[in-house]
Amino acid sequence: MIASNRSDWPQTTAQPTAVVAMGGHAFIQSGETGTYEEHERNARMICRELTVLVERGYRMVITHGNGPQVGDLLLRQELTRDSMPRWPLDVLVAQTEGSLGYLMQRALLNELRSRGIHRYVVSMITQVVVDPNDAAFGNPAKPVGPFMRQEEAERLRDQFGWIVREDAGRGWRRVVPSPKPVRIVQAEMVREAVHSGNIAVAGGGGGVPVTLDPAGDYVGVEAVIDKDLTSGVLATDIGAELLVILTAVDAVYLDWSTPNRRRVGAVTMSECEQYIANGTFPAGSMGPKVEAIFGFLERGGRRGLITDPQSLRDALDGRAGTHFIGRI
Amino acid sequence: MIASNRSDWPQTTAQPTAVVAMGGHAFIQSGETGTYEEHERNARMICRELTVLVERGYRMVITHGNGPQVGDLLLRQELTRDSMPRWPLDVLVAQTEGSLGYLMQRALLNELRSRGIHRYVVSMITQVVVDPNDAAFGNPAKPVGPFMRQEEAERLRDQFGWIVREDAGRGWRRVVPSPKPVRIVQAEMVREAVHSGNIAVAGGGGGVPVTLDPAGDYVGVEAVIDKDLTSGVLATDIGAELLVILTAVDAVYLDWSTPNRRRVGAVTMSECEQYIANGTFPAGSMGPKVEAIFGFLERGGRRGLITDPQSLRDALDGRAGTHFIGRI
Repeated sequence: MIASNRSDWPQTTAQPTAVVAMGGHAFIQSGETGTYEEHERNARMICRELTVLVERGYRMVITHGNGPQVGDLLLRQELTRDSMPRWPLDVLVAQTEGSLGYLMQRALLNELRSRGIHRYVVSMITQVVVDPNDAAFGNPAKPVGPFMRQEEAERLRDQFGWIVREDAGRGWRRVVPSPKPVRIVQAEMVREAVHSGNIAVAGGGGGVPVTLDPAGDYVGVEAVIDKDLTSGVLATDIGAELLVILTAVDAVYLDWSTPNRRRVGAVTMSECEQYIANGTFPAGSMGPKVEAIFGFLERGGRRGLITDPQSLRDALDGRAGTHFIGRI
Repeated sequence: MIASNRSDWPQTTAQPTAVVAMGGHAFIQSGETGTYEEHERNARMICRELTVLVERGYRMVITHGNGPQVGDLLLRQELTRDSMPRWPLDVLVAQTEGSLGYLMQRALLNELRSRGIHRYVVSMITQVVVDPNDAAFGNPAKPVGPFMRQEEAERLRDQFGWIVREDAGRGWRRVVPSPKPVRIVQAEMVREAVHSGNIAVAGGGGGVPVTLDPAGDYVGVEAVIDKDLTSGVLATDIGAELLVILTAVDAVYLDWSTPNRRRVGAVTMSECEQYIANGTFPAGSMGPKVEAIFGFLERGGRRGLITDPQSLRDALDGRAGTHFIGRI
C-alpha cells in the first residue's frame, strides 16, 4: 500500500472501516453436506483469517450469503407442507440471519478472545429496501430451493403463484426476483455500533427484502437480494473505506477457463468500468462482485479487494488478491 | 405515579429505559394456528400498544418468547429427519430470534412512522451465558417440540441422547434443561444502541444459551432459558429503570381459580419476597415473572409491572396492572 494512500485514512475517520462479504457456501467446504458441525468448523476457520483486519486496526462489518441455508429451509417447508404453515421467503431469510449470524458472532468472539483481543460482536437483523418497479420483478431469474419434478413445480405454481422454471436439464426450480438493494434500513445502527468499536454482522443473505407500500409501511417481498451488492450499499451507507469480497478463488482472473488464464493484480476505476461494459465476468460468479465494488468506489469508497480467506493477510500486504483502486 | 418518584429518574439517566418482555404466544391469538398472517397482525397490534412507552419518553428494549415458534422448527426437523441434517436447539433459537425479531422491528418501525415518530429499530442476536453446573442440567424439565408416541420418543432418546418424558397423558415429549441466565453476552451493545436513542429487540426466546468451555470458548448448549428471567438480567445489565412483563392477563391475581380471586395492585419488595417464599404463584405461569421482577428490583431496578398489552397505557397511569416497587 502506498504511504500517501494510507495517510489519507484519517480524513474520514480515526480508524478505517472494512465491510467483508462472504458467501453462504463458505460455511460448507467442498465434499461436505452442510451439517452443523461443518458450519461451526468453517465459521471458526474464516474468523481466524478475519482477525487480521482487527489486528491491523480496522473497524469491521461482516455480511454473509445464505444460498444453501435458505434453500434448506425452503426444502424443509416443502417436505412438511401438508402438516405445517408456510412462511414467506423474507421471513426465512431473517431466520438465516439469526442462525448464521449466531455462528459467526460466536466463532469470532472465541477467535478474538484466544488472541487476547477484547471486542464486542453482534448480529443485526437487517431489512433492505428494494424498488417495487425494479425490472427484476418482471423477470424472476434467481433459482431458490430444491429441484422438483415438473408436475410438482406446476402444482406449487398453481397453489402459491410461484414462478417455476426448468433449470439446465437438472429439474424444475422456483425462481424469485433478485432486485437491486436501494437502502439499508438499519444502516445508521450498524454505523453507530461499528464506530463505538464493536464488530457487527449485518445484511446477512443480502438482507431481508422489503418494499414500501402506498401508506409508507415496510412490507416483506419474496425475493433474494445479491449479498455482494448489499455489502456494497451497506459499505457506502456506513462510510466504510474498504470493501472486501471473499470468495473461493484467491483473485479475479481473465480468461479463467483457457490456458491463457491470468490473475488481475490491480484495477483502476476506468479499467473496472470497461470490464463491466464488456461483460468480462460472468453474471453468476465474479460479475456481481466486481459490480458491487465498482458501485462502492463510484459512491466514494476508497478500496475494494477480492480474494479468498486464506489469502486475506497477504492481500492486505499487496501480495495477493485483486485490488480495486478508488479515489485517492 | 407519585411525583417524587418520577423526579428520581434523572439521577440514573436523562431518559429512563424500559425493558418489555412479551411471550411467544403473544404472536398467536386464541383460536389461531400460528400462520405468518396471524403473526404479522398480532405483531402490529402489540407494537401499537408499545408505542405508549416511546411517547412517554422511555428508551426501550423488547424481549420476546419463542415457545410455539421453536416448537414448530423442532417439529419440522423431526418430519424431515430422514433426508435433512439436524440442527441443535441453540441454533434454532437463533433462527427464531431472526424471524420474530424481523417481524417485531418491521411492525414497530411501521407503527412509529404512522405516528410521526422517527426512531431506529434493530433486532440483535443475543447469546446468554448459563452455568454448566446449574441444577437444571441434572433435571431437564422444560418440554419442547411436538408430542410423540412412546416408541418414537425412545428411538430419538437412543439416537440423539435426548431426555424424553410422558407429559400428563397427552403423549411423550423431549424435555430440555432450563438453566438460569447468568450474563448477557451482547448487553453492552444493547445498552449502547438504546442510549443512542434507538430501540432494540434482544434476548429473544430467552437468548441463545451458551456455556464457556475449559479453554474459555463459548459453546452452544441444548437448553431453553426462561425469557422472563433473561429480560430481568438484561434489564439490570443495561441499567434499565423499568421492567414490564406483558402476559395474557391484565394483572397478577391472588387465589385466581377461586371465587375469592382478587387483583394485586402494588407489591413492595418484602411482599414480593414473601409471595416467592410461599410459592404463591405457579411455576408454569406467574411464578417466573414475579421472580424475574424481584431479581431485577433486588439488583437495583426501580419498578416492575405485569399487565397485558391492552392495559399497558392505563397501567403506566397507575390505573391497571400489578406494580412492583423497588428502591426509591
